[in-house]
Amino acid sequence: MQSEHYMKLALSMAESTRGQTSPNPAVGAVVVKDGEVVGMGAHLKPGEGHAEVHALNQAGAKAEGADIYVTLEPCSHFGKTPPCSNLIIDRKIKRVFIACTDPNPLVAGQGTKRLKEAGIEVHTGICEQEALEINKHFFHFIQHKTPYVTLKTASTLDGKTATANGDSKWITSESSRQNVHYDRHRHDAILVGVNTVIRDNPHLTTRLPQGGINPIRIILDTHLKTPIESNVVQDNESKTIIITGKNVSKEEIERYESAYCEIVPLGSSKLTIEEVLEELGKRSITSLYVEGGSSIHYSFLEEAAFQELVVYLAPKLVGGKDAFTSFGGRGFSSIAEGQEVEILSIEKLENDIKIIAVPKKCNQ
Amino acid sequence: MQSEHYMKLALSMAESTRGQTSPNPAVGAVVVKDGEVVGMGAHLKPGEGHAEVHALNQAGAKAEGADIYVTLEPCSHFGKTPPCSNLIIDRKIKRVFIACTDPNPLVAGQGTKRLKEAGIEVHTGICEQEALEINKHFFHFIQHKTPYVTLKTASTLDGKTATANGDSKWITSESSRQNVHYDRHRHDAILVGVNTVIRDNPHLTTRLPQGGINPIRIILDTHLKTPIESNVVQDNESKTIIITGKNVSKEEIERYESAYCEIVPLGSSKLTIEEVLEELGKRSITSLYVEGGSSIHYSFLEEAAFQELVVYLAPKLVGGKDAFTSFGGRGFSSIAEGQEVEILSIEKLENDIKIIAVPKKCNQ
Repeated sequence: MQSEHYMKLALSMAESTRGQTSPNPAVGAVVVKDGEVVGMGAHLKPGEGHAEVHALNQAGAKAEGADIYVTLEPCSHFGKTPPCSNLIIDRKIKRVFIACTDPNPLVAGQGTKRLKEAGIEVHTGICEQEALEINKHFFHFIQHKTPYVTLKTASTLDGKTATANGDSKWITSESSRQNVHYDRHRHDAILVGVNTVIRDNPHLTTRLPQGGINPIRIILDTHLKTPIESNVVQDNESKTIIITGKNVSKEEIERYESAYCEIVPLGSSKLTIEEVLEELGKRSITSLYVEGGSSIHYSFLEEAAFQELVVYLAPKLVGGKDAFTSFGGRGFSSIAEGQEVEILSIEKLENDIKIIAVPKKCNQ
Repeated sequence: MQSEHYMKLALSMAESTRGQTSPNPAVGAVVVKDGEVVGMGAHLKPGEGHAEVHALNQAGAKAEGADIYVTLEPCSHFGKTPPCSNLIIDRKIKRVFIACTDPNPLVAGQGTKRLKEAGIEVHTGICEQEALEINKHFFHFIQHKTPYVTLKTASTLDGKTATANGDSKWITSESSRQNVHYDRHRHDAILVGVNTVIRDNPHLTTRLPQGGINPIRIILDTHLKTPIESNVVQDNESKTIIITGKNVSKEEIERYESAYCEIVPLGSSKLTIEEVLEELGKRSITSLYVEGGSSIHYSFLEEAAFQELVVYLAPKLVGGKDAFTSFGGRGFSSIAEGQEVEILSIEKLENDIKIIAVPKKCNQ
């Protein structure tokens, strides 16, 4: 067996936990001795054991002289659990294979250094791209202290999100909608504008056949116009944070607040995406899934404040010069000023097309 | 060698002549004797020899006892040239391999029948799909007496064809624009609305590094508002047909007419796509490439009067609720009323995405 084979196993364990480990990264580990897998595990929940701990516990005495494959550099600091690099040394592991190093300034090469000092052979960079992809939310957050922002749009092939008189049901296929729910599960929070709440009264929860984690719901609502009877305020399915401008009275705010609903007034009268993201960062929200509407999408576009764009295109044409589109607002005045993106992937989902792109320039 | 191998050679010869044989189909032929290619040819221009004639002339005496591979059923009627099935019989061909039968009511199985009656072994349906694709324009025209309509759109990834203040240069890449010019070459005619002429003053010619055939230019212009100094009226690069409603004076019409420019008033005061296509069909225009603008595209969409949609998406986002989109007009009032399409292909062209789709229901 090649080392890539064991690392891919560790990566698939890490991949399966995406969305449930935040604000920690998703990590998998495999212990191999004499060509036999003797331990495996993944980090499952913040505050619980790291991947290496689970895998080494399973290996028991067989860890001595064995190899360990870890998708992320083992930690070297005391957090909620003791450092994994110490445990690897204590268990007398012979060789450590690492997919990618940890950008966390508290780790950043320290884990590898400590292992090498203990005489352990360390190999890094195996399946590095896959490992970076799995923890892109975490890596972005650790470096910028603001959430990784994914903008999601769903439109007809001619770019319409609703007809001129507002009909939008249903544009995309069941497969695309399931895909969206999986992305909700994988993000810490979901964001929409108050107009979406008023128009659609959505729950913004994760509805998958096997269940899933509901993201925290963020409503951008400068003047606190969210209807108090709306689902996001009343359903208690997940926490809801309504971000307002500064000109909202204390009495108004108190009407909304509950164990599940919090009103957060920011310092200016007109919200900027920059201050919204800083506020979410302070609350350890590492990833944000932005579902619109079109003015909200344009605000993120205008401030170049996103890391990823996911576009669902349905095989339908509806036309209409007054129909709605995914990015509204004022719009850039010339094509040249527009935001260039790089297309990372194009795939078919049932009869829809899913396109993933990243901005060529962005503010972070 | 398999018979598919020789048929693919014949198909690539036919493919290379697409756009230059109208109103005739593109056809290729290969003559094979004892595993050796002894003749090959394609139909090059209407009025000139058919593919079988070229290939059999090249084969000469070697045709006796040989096989011939033809991409379309050999004709059995006297047109501008004598029937090819007679020639095949005269030259004592042993076996005939045919990709697809001719939907032309004047041929339709008659060619095959005559060959069989002369004791020749006939095999049909080899590489049939590729053969049908090459002559889709011809087949549609022969069956419906109206041109095969291709709608082409080019927009940003967020579906905009121009910013709110009309800027549209440049949305797509050089590769996409070359691809559009090749499609112009392959269609008999190109159609735009008068507003596109007024706004952009385009030439609507085929500009490819190696040259190409300029399509006939069709302008939909109910009230004859095309500027008389515009390129399509003045440049003499190809014929221009301006289709108007009935309320246009004879004096106005005479101002435009020349050897290259013709004004065609139709019988009603408001043009319908149906009568426009009937008029073009009478003029033996077998294929029409519709480049917009957005109201024109919507007219074709509303009447379900198209056979193919080609969408170019550029990796840019510009936003704007008042920006232009590819299908404007009134638009359908609900998503459910929209036109469903089937996605046939998705490919990358440089950094753009090209999508080809066909309508699931259409009026023809």
